[in-house]
Amino acid sequence: MSELVRVAVDAMGGDHAPDEIVKGAVEAVNADTGVKVFLVGRQEAVEAQLKNYTYDGERIEVVDAREVIETAEPPVMAIRKKKDSSIVKALHLVKDGTCDAFVSAGSTGAVLVGGQVLIGKIKGVERAPLAPLIPTQKGVTLLIDCGANVDARPSHLVQFAKMGSIYMENVVGIKNPRVGIVNIGAEEEKGNALVKETFPLLQACEDINFIGSVEARDIPAGAVDVAVCEAFVGNVLLKTYEGVAAVLIKKIKGTLMSSLKTKIGALLIKPALKKTLGTFSTEQHGGAPLLGLNGLVVKTHGSSKAEEIKNSVLQCVTFTEQKIPDKIRKNITIKEKEGSEHGV
Amino acid sequence: MSELVRVAVDAMGGDHAPDEIVKGAVEAVNADTGVKVFLVGRQEAVEAQLKNYTYDGERIEVVDAREVIETAEPPVMAIRKKKDSSIVKALHLVKDGTCDAFVSAGSTGAVLVGGQVLIGKIKGVERAPLAPLIPTQKGVTLLIDCGANVDARPSHLVQFAKMGSIYMENVVGIKNPRVGIVNIGAEEEKGNALVKETFPLLQACEDINFIGSVEARDIPAGAVDVAVCEAFVGNVLLKTYEGVAAVLIKKIKGTLMSSLKTKIGALLIKPALKKTLGTFSTEQHGGAPLLGLNGLVVKTHGSSKAEEIKNSVLQCVTFTEQKIPDKIRKNITIKEKEGSEHGV
Repeated sequence: MSELVRVAVDAMGGDHAPDEIVKGAVEAVNADTGVKVFLVGRQEAVEAQLKNYTYDGERIEVVDAREVIETAEPPVMAIRKKKDSSIVKALHLVKDGTCDAFVSAGSTGAVLVGGQVLIGKIKGVERAPLAPLIPTQKGVTLLIDCGANVDARPSHLVQFAKMGSIYMENVVGIKNPRVGIVNIGAEEEKGNALVKETFPLLQACEDINFIGSVEARDIPAGAVDVAVCEAFVGNVLLKTYEGVAAVLIKKIKGTLMSSLKTKIGALLIKPALKKTLGTFSTEQHGGAPLLGLNGLVVKTHGSSKAEEIKNSVLQCVTFTEQKIPDKIRKNITIKEKEGSEHGV
Repeated sequence: MSELVRVAVDAMGGDHAPDEIVKGAVEAVNADTGVKVFLVGRQEAVEAQLKNYTYDGERIEVVDAREVIETAEPPVMAIRKKKDSSIVKALHLVKDGTCDAFVSAGSTGAVLVGGQVLIGKIKGVERAPLAPLIPTQKGVTLLIDCGANVDARPSHLVQFAKMGSIYMENVVGIKNPRVGIVNIGAEEEKGNALVKETFPLLQACEDINFIGSVEARDIPAGAVDVAVCEAFVGNVLLKTYEGVAAVLIKKIKGTLMSSLKTKIGALLIKPALKKTLGTFSTEQHGGAPLLGLNGLVVKTHGSSKAEEIKNSVLQCVTFTEQKIPDKIRKNITIKEKEGSEHGV
């Protein structure tokens, strides 16, 4: 029992809570005998859902939390006031060592702020980046940072590059991941002040495979494994990704229904097309880890269904078994010394 | 004759120069009797192409320029050294009043730098933004700035909003265009330092229809007519747009060819699908104007063919007839006073 990876799951977060969340937690427990899930939320609502499933009762525990933080609430205030919310209670489970990780489809702001404030950052980590995996032509790319750390400094971006590399290598399984900095041209002299200051610092890092600037145009084609950027830029990139794909797919579907001829054609291509578009949906790749904390926090989409929750819980198992926080701690400490040599 | 709009066209710029450029210029002259084109480039190469067409000889003039600025050349140096290049000679035609506007598919950097240095900015304009039209579900949106003005200040963004509004209203024909600032959330308290400082200044502008923040996710759906942002962010947004659309279309085409069944389906949907994807290509909407100069400069895609060149030349006619520089001059002057009240 002592070897189990213990994951707290926010049973009340997201558009499909608690039913899809509970279903996903049960599926994770049934898929991996090495995991125990703590479902945090209104006990009666969670238990009503649990009744529908068969699972190892030793490996699912319900933790009662009466309050829910809504998406629209100002996060700092919500974390401070709603002590009995599923997010705050779950974060405390990680803080006090009852759990190794936390998965939530709830308020992004509350999860980001709460993670940093309640769980705390690894010693030496300046900021905790949110790092979603985005689909590309070749597989997936880690986009780091898309979180709340706007107006980052060069030293933050260097740490993001290190943490992203460790994650891609150890959790996603990409050997020697290619790290690029998101820029407006491939030439070294291009960029804004932040990129120009960060570029030589990344070049000086011996423990990452820095390949230089990457243009946003080349990210969907899979030009890098880790795309480093400041959070505002990362958020715009991620949201444009989702928005363009959504509108394009909508337009294509409209076209397929536009005449009898296209409707017949649509019947013939539908299964294959559905599979293709599925691989290119940002929602198919599970949650985004908030890296650099003393424990893992995974933020899934608000629209998460059971499969994304299940995958995120299993992602926590790999993360914990690979001792990612230890690896980051070691790596960042070396970094601090290098950083000070560069006057960061 | 004195009423003709005179447009200089860079005959040597882009992947398909000079043949497609010359063809586009001829098509523009044949489409609109109110325009005269000055084709700037190697005389013998341009004249060899012109021989293939029938057109009003009074309204096409060849201006010899022996040098060509390559895309990879550092722009500032290229503009300074290559006095006999098609870009520098064409910009001088606008500067000395021989031409009203300039269209180029050549080096973006050289066109941006050269436009600002040689033609010069309208009095009161702090920076000249590059403003491409991007396709949306509903039509087109002006993305301003995607140019070389990285690390802009709030007062620059306010001017971009004004210039973008004038352009959309008078050239594209959108009444009372909706202006939004690109942000990472719809709430007013979100954003980086630049957005937070700019937001109240835009709210205070009485001469634009400012509707608040716009998330990158909602731009493809057509949430605003003018999307205001700093150039680095705009460039990332534009390039992500192009990259995601290109990869998605490539994946869909691959799917259609994946089996006999899908190939038959593809035959049935192909014409309709081609039309749909065509409306969503960023290259179908002509060139991007560089606004705020004493004359119009339009930068078209490096991959421009005749149609984009033709459309860009005709765009210059509307721009000149609508006296856009005068309208900007008037508007920006008022702005300066307002700006100083806000301590900008």
